Amino acid sequence: MEMFNKYCFIGCEDTFNESEIVLFGAPFDGTCTFRPGSRFGPYKMRIDSYGLETYSPYFNRDLLDYKIHDAGDLDLAFGNPLAVMESIRKFTNEIVFKNKKPLMIGGEHLVTLPVVEALYEKYNNLVLLHFDAHTDLRDEFMGESLSHSTVIKKIWNFLGDNRIYQFGIRSGLKEEFLWADKGHTFINKFSYDKLSDIVKKIKDKPVYVTIDLDILDPSVFPGTGTPEPGGILFSDMIEILKTIDLLNMVGADIVELAPDYDPTGVSTAVASKTLRELMLVMCESKI
Amino acid sequence: MEMFNKYCFIGCEDTFNESEIVLFGAPFDGTCTFRPGSRFGPYKMRIDSYGLETYSPYFNRDLLDYKIHDAGDLDLAFGNPLAVMESIRKFTNEIVFKNKKPLMIGGEHLVTLPVVEALYEKYNNLVLLHFDAHTDLRDEFMGESLSHSTVIKKIWNFLGDNRIYQFGIRSGLKEEFLWADKGHTFINKFSYDKLSDIVKKIKDKPVYVTIDLDILDPSVFPGTGTPEPGGILFSDMIEILKTIDLLNMVGADIVELAPDYDPTGVSTAVASKTLRELMLVMCESKI
Amino acid sequence: MEMFNKYCFIGCEDTFNESEIVLFGAPFDGTCTFRPGSRFGPYKMRIDSYGLETYSPYFNRDLLDYKIHDAGDLDLAFGNPLAVMESIRKFTNEIVFKNKKPLMIGGEHLVTLPVVEALYEKYNNLVLLHFDAHTDLRDEFMGESLSHSTVIKKIWNFLGDNRIYQFGIRSGLKEEFLWADKGHTFINKFSYDKLSDIVKKIKDKPVYVTIDLDILDPSVFPGTGTPEPGGILFSDMIEILKTIDLLNMVGADIVELAPDYDPTGVSTAVASKTLRELMLVMCESKI
Amino acid sequence: MEMFNKYCFIGCEDTFNESEIVLFGAPFDGTCTFRPGSRFGPYKMRIDSYGLETYSPYFNRDLLDYKIHDAGDLDLAFGNPLAVMESIRKFTNEIVFKNKKPLMIGGEHLVTLPVVEALYEKYNNLVLLHFDAHTDLRDEFMGESLSHSTVIKKIWNFLGDNRIYQFGIRSGLKEEFLWADKGHTFINKFSYDKLSDIVKKIKDKPVYVTIDLDILDPSVFPGTGTPEPGGILFSDMIEILKTIDLLNMVGADIVELAPDYDPTGVSTAVASKTLRELMLVMCESKI
Amino acid sequence: MEMFNKYCFIGCEDTFNESEIVLFGAPFDGTCTFRPGSRFGPYKMRIDSYGLETYSPYFNRDLLDYKIHDAGDLDLAFGNPLAVMESIRKFTNEIVFKNKKPLMIGGEHLVTLPVVEALYEKYNNLVLLHFDAHTDLRDEFMGESLSHSTVIKKIWNFLGDNRIYQFGIRSGLKEEFLWADKGHTFINKFSYDKLSDIVKKIKDKPVYVTIDLDILDPSVFPGTGTPEPGGILFSDMIEILKTIDLLNMVGADIVELAPDYDPTGVSTAVASKTLRELMLVMCESKI
Amino acid sequence: MEMFNKYCFIGCEDTFNESEIVLFGAPFDGTCTFRPGSRFGPYKMRIDSYGLETYSPYFNRDLLDYKIHDAGDLDLAFGNPLAVMESIRKFTNEIVFKNKKPLMIGGEHLVTLPVVEALYEKYNNLVLLHFDAHTDLRDEFMGESLSHSTVIKKIWNFLGDNRIYQFGIRSGLKEEFLWADKGHTFINKFSYDKLSDIVKKIKDKPVYVTIDLDILDPSVFPGTGTPEPGGILFSDMIEILKTIDLLNMVGADIVELAPDYDPTGVSTAVASKTLRELMLVMCESKI
Repeated sequence: MEMFNKYCFIGCEDTFNESEIVLFGAPFDGTCTFRPGSRFGPYKMRIDSYGLETYSPYFNRDLLDYKIHDAGDLDLAFGNPLAVMESIRKFTNEIVFKNKKPLMIGGEHLVTLPVVEALYEKYNNLVLLHFDAHTDLRDEFMGESLSHSTVIKKIWNFLGDNRIYQFGIRSGLKEEFLWADKGHTFINKFSYDKLSDIVKKIKDKPVYVTIDLDILDPSVFPGTGTPEPGGILFSDMIEILKTIDLLNMVGADIVELAPDYDPTGVSTAVASKTLRELMLVMCESKI
Repeated sequence: MEMFNKYCFIGCEDTFNESEIVLFGAPFDGTCTFRPGSRFGPYKMRIDSYGLETYSPYFNRDLLDYKIHDAGDLDLAFGNPLAVMESIRKFTNEIVFKNKKPLMIGGEHLVTLPVVEALYEKYNNLVLLHFDAHTDLRDEFMGESLSHSTVIKKIWNFLGDNRIYQFGIRSGLKEEFLWADKGHTFINKFSYDKLSDIVKKIKDKPVYVTIDLDILDPSVFPGTGTPEPGGILFSDMIEILKTIDLLNMVGADIVELAPDYDPTGVSTAVASKTLRELMLVMCESKI
Repeated sequence: MEMFNKYCFIGCEDTFNESEIVLFGAPFDGTCTFRPGSRFGPYKMRIDSYGLETYSPYFNRDLLDYKIHDAGDLDLAFGNPLAVMESIRKFTNEIVFKNKKPLMIGGEHLVTLPVVEALYEKYNNLVLLHFDAHTDLRDEFMGESLSHSTVIKKIWNFLGDNRIYQFGIRSGLKEEFLWADKGHTFINKFSYDKLSDIVKKIKDKPVYVTIDLDILDPSVFPGTGTPEPGGILFSDMIEILKTIDLLNMVGADIVELAPDYDPTGVSTAVASKTLRELMLVMCESKI
Repeated sequence: MEMFNKYCFIGCEDTFNESEIVLFGAPFDGTCTFRPGSRFGPYKMRIDSYGLETYSPYFNRDLLDYKIHDAGDLDLAFGNPLAVMESIRKFTNEIVFKNKKPLMIGGEHLVTLPVVEALYEKYNNLVLLHFDAHTDLRDEFMGESLSHSTVIKKIWNFLGDNRIYQFGIRSGLKEEFLWADKGHTFINKFSYDKLSDIVKKIKDKPVYVTIDLDILDPSVFPGTGTPEPGGILFSDMIEILKTIDLLNMVGADIVELAPDYDPTGVSTAVASKTLRELMLVMCESKI
Repeated sequence: MEMFNKYCFIGCEDTFNESEIVLFGAPFDGTCTFRPGSRFGPYKMRIDSYGLETYSPYFNRDLLDYKIHDAGDLDLAFGNPLAVMESIRKFTNEIVFKNKKPLMIGGEHLVTLPVVEALYEKYNNLVLLHFDAHTDLRDEFMGESLSHSTVIKKIWNFLGDNRIYQFGIRSGLKEEFLWADKGHTFINKFSYDKLSDIVKKIKDKPVYVTIDLDILDPSVFPGTGTPEPGGILFSDMIEILKTIDLLNMVGADIVELAPDYDPTGVSTAVASKTLRELMLVMCESKI
Repeated sequence: MEMFNKYCFIGCEDTFNESEIVLFGAPFDGTCTFRPGSRFGPYKMRIDSYGLETYSPYFNRDLLDYKIHDAGDLDLAFGNPLAVMESIRKFTNEIVFKNKKPLMIGGEHLVTLPVVEALYEKYNNLVLLHFDAHTDLRDEFMGESLSHSTVIKKIWNFLGDNRIYQFGIRSGLKEEFLWADKGHTFINKFSYDKLSDIVKKIKDKPVYVTIDLDILDPSVFPGTGTPEPGGILFSDMIEILKTIDLLNMVGADIVELAPDYDPTGVSTAVASKTLRELMLVMCESKI
């Protein structure tokens, strides 16, 4: 009798040990400043992944040809960002220790911080590719330094200058843009037209890719906490993924789907398909 | 590292072998006459069961004190009711063969037919308790004899007279009511006030319980294919379950949740809580 | 080849000439003070009536045994209440002139005014039974005398004292309640427990019944412009209709369904079923 | 008194006999693999067509200048795809027999099969233009050969090679793409940039056009069963229709609107406007 | 020219200094365990209060006859429950210091803690009336002691035994019920039938009333984080408020409306009307 | 203690007297022909403006660097368009009299008429830039001359030929297009590619800008009364605003957001961001 358990992303049914990539969810949205609900991102992406195929005509690759383990979700305490950071870091350390690559589904953007921290221990020349509508370069938000609007600044604190490349950015405080312009991070405003140049520059370095899905226009991706009109289309997302194909991607994440804000389910379809393509890129990554 | 996999109903994490009750989903809605979508009932009930506790103050029982296995969902072909009937019957046979009790989540009401057929092979004095807004006693619907509006009639075909008790019924063709009145089935119109009398009468017989959740008033349970105003409240449902507690329940199901029609999620909460209580009743069943 | 045109209320397919009752829609919501959208009430009730049966187990009557014509909707100009009143009055006059009974689907409550005016020309001893959450006894709303919150006062202007009976009322200005208490109208606050007494009193008079569906509790009927918690249940509505059965009902309406505010569709189911029962009462009315 | 019956697509009020084009609905969704509900497409498109005008500035044509009959919907049995196929085929035969052109509103994509079969009897050199996100070239889905994911393969079974042209395709099994590549069908992946070349090639042949609306990007058209990110925009749809203008179109359909999945109503607006433009192209078709 | 600023609850336009009651919002939902979004409760209740009247026919009182100041919302940091507690406590202290009574709109239930703490400084014989579906008596939730599921236990820590009365409770861990039964708090399971007895007992003490709106049945109030079927009706809520009328109420709150989970807006209407009645009770409170 | 009143658009907290621009809402939708609800546009744009920043990276300008007063909403009577016109005209006169510029949030498009009338008294060489999907050039709609589909024609009645420039138009009666083509207004069909030429031509004249947000494609902006597929993208809107930057803009409005039709909230985000950019253009306007 064939039974069916949908709580595994389509095509990711391999065991932890045999897999090169470990997919896991970090359903935390405790510092979200506007509309919460990204905690429901991971389960909904898994369920709706069955509306997709495992084969990608964009890359002519099939998930079934690779080894990927879906580890489920971390069990995280809302209301205590510090404890959440610790849980994610520990789990990422385990993955990295076993020479596998972490691929995380958020949750809000703050969950990126501990994954990058864990990878930085191994790769001290790590480079961050950051796709987002927002700068996320604040020092604090209403007195709190751990926030989804400070996460890239927190990462800069240890990565330092010339390591962070930001694309699609179209919202932030004037101060954040001015600070970035002093050479701390590279901001490609509104667009990603400088991406292929950057890719050439970093092609020998270990790369972490963080995709805040609100880089997409809200028409394409309405189900998110802080929708910001003027974003890129899904075809642009595919172009981005083709451009970063064959880099040394050592880890990645995809964050900020808040599925309950989109009753059409389209945001989840977009997130799931982006994740499928990102996986297929990661599977062929050089490192 | 504690990981969390929500695709199992809360408190039902025991293995098949150690369990007395086997929970499974039958996500089929192919003959639904008005609004389809009950195929999404099983997964949503599992996910949202984590908004509940395992402990019931109504029965002072806790799911953690019993052995229940959640087998996941059957993989069913839409568009072929006959093949679907066959799949469900086969899986139920397996459960019954191993002396366990089937507890099914629909799907539309037609899925009840093969489970009752399978149990009837073992218990030829089987009695059916049917909770529903609709008679479901048609001979055919638009020429089709396999339909969620014919299911009880199809069961009567082998169970025969004096075996089927229907409660909460408030919609049907005039002919259906007239046919039932000839002594074929017992209909408790609008209500369940005759239930305790019936319970006394059947207390030594093996009983199957089928709950079409649209017996509930649409204010309580809007997320269903054919909402029928004038139903019972959730407190009535609890009273029903208390009344049938300690019967010889050999199997049961709960059908017709179509979660996408209720964006508030309340219908799923009602379905999940009803399932929890039904399980706790079944766990203490005499047989 | 059997074709199917759903834009006729279920069981109302008789011609104008052969029918005793003429059903029509008045899709106007131009003076709605809070949430507009009752213009979409008539079409949605027709479409969703096919989720019901023609047979009522409450009254043991079947729509198919009576002659009812569904005339479709009046074509009304938004933004000009005066012109709208005129259109409805003219059409009602035609119906009354041919010795048929008008049964109108709103639209907002203001549409009741011209129908009662037209019937009053024929029945100058007309009595009004008014079921509603709101008093609707204002003299004006923001300077406008034609409003869904003034409609009963406007009707009182020609019907006068001792002709208007209001049930289920639970919202209004203090002044409105005080004015009614002076003997102008009878208000049964919160409830309808005085209805059977009133029915005895008016049993020989021609009666018009207007049902503002917001008399129902918002849990039962959320899809309306001004939801007012604390209302009656659907079973109460059935009890009301049984109580007024066999009165001399010369016309009736059912108003204030705003279906787009209820994505579950349950409000429309409630409205359609109430209309079915109201029709079956009207069909057996003595006059 | 002007009454208004909205259950006819705007501008299609001509009689069957006087019309060249016969519009009808096939509200069937029984084999839908993910989210059902396309059965509600036809009625919703009719209702919401009144939010449009009859005049198209794209083609400078007006529906009022042509003869089109809206025949309503076929009455179809869910749960029996074979019987449904038969009903649609019979009705299409009637239309074709009277030298009129069928224009069908789905329903799911499987309903295309019987219409093409009926037309193929008359035009054995028929060519199929297929606009879709999905290949629909499977042999079976979970053991069933009649499915919305096998429909084009079923049509190929009688049309054969070099007759089927597929545009906008961006999802399928690897095997389907490989099979097509062997010369069985022409697939224009992701796009329709080869359409004008194809049009030249087939300009003397009778053409059937089937538009699965999920060819559109889900941002434009979220209300569908299997939303597939990365599709075309509405302006592309207009360009497609301009490109196929003046072909010998002998029939057409537009399928897979599931309106309840889009509470904004925009999907229905898109479907209705596409249908208006498609009609205006068909009205000027050479045959 | 009359302008209109809706960001003030209807009838609460008095100044801080002239008012006896100070209404304020605490839009925090950072520890919510299931569905977040109660942060949007306060603004939505204000906006939708204009769908109500200022006059209550239940109490025959009018908001316009009392002095109430709507202070707006506190500006709270998500992600730091400790800082949030501090902000609320400070603002409540200010209100209490000026001999006014705090009336707070949540937010999640944790926000009750600092208000009760502030009042306890003034009234060390304070009694708590707690209306809720949930016990809220956990010691911690996933390691966190500040949580909406621990709030009553945290209050017990300083109030001690015989001071806390809980009504409507129908969900919790078995341990929580057992702990309460040891005499720490009084739990009226499922109902409030012991309320009038309790009221007699505490009629000379200063009383704080906290209403978690999920005490209401989800049919009445679906827009909340953890809907728990089996609750009380709106008419019960009115009865509760009538029962506690004329107690020495020194403060109160109403929490856990998450309006985005109820697209019908009915939950907000229920919350706003409950708040109106609660205010009218508080205005006539003896102290 | 920092309190927060959200009923003011972000960054518009200056007093009437110190401001150059006066923002106000005109929440009227009484003549809407399809889906009403634009009355809820102004409050929702204010609330959700806090999901944005005050700084625009498009113009490198910040709202905090300008003086703008948010005057709240006019209190308007539904059901009486004439009275509404009068209220808006009077308030605009006040603003203009004090040498400030009106910036209005609708409501439906009819509200533009009185603002332009008021400005025309001061600037008799006024030019109108009209961005919209619809011509709005009808003489009447169902007998009514005051309608959101006649508003531009009503303005032409006093402005006359060569003063009105319409962009993005893609829907209307054939007659309207023909009438415009006679030189009465300039219509840039489907697009705004002629805008920069027009801007050069009118650069010395006083200009009023009216933006009917349905010029945007419904994928970008679904929350509107008459969604019309085929519109412009948000990036086009930014380009439009850049093109009209530095004109002599003496007033402007933004109309036809009906937020309840878009449960994702994205339409409101688009409207709010468009308003922010429009303000920043207006603030630097030459007059």
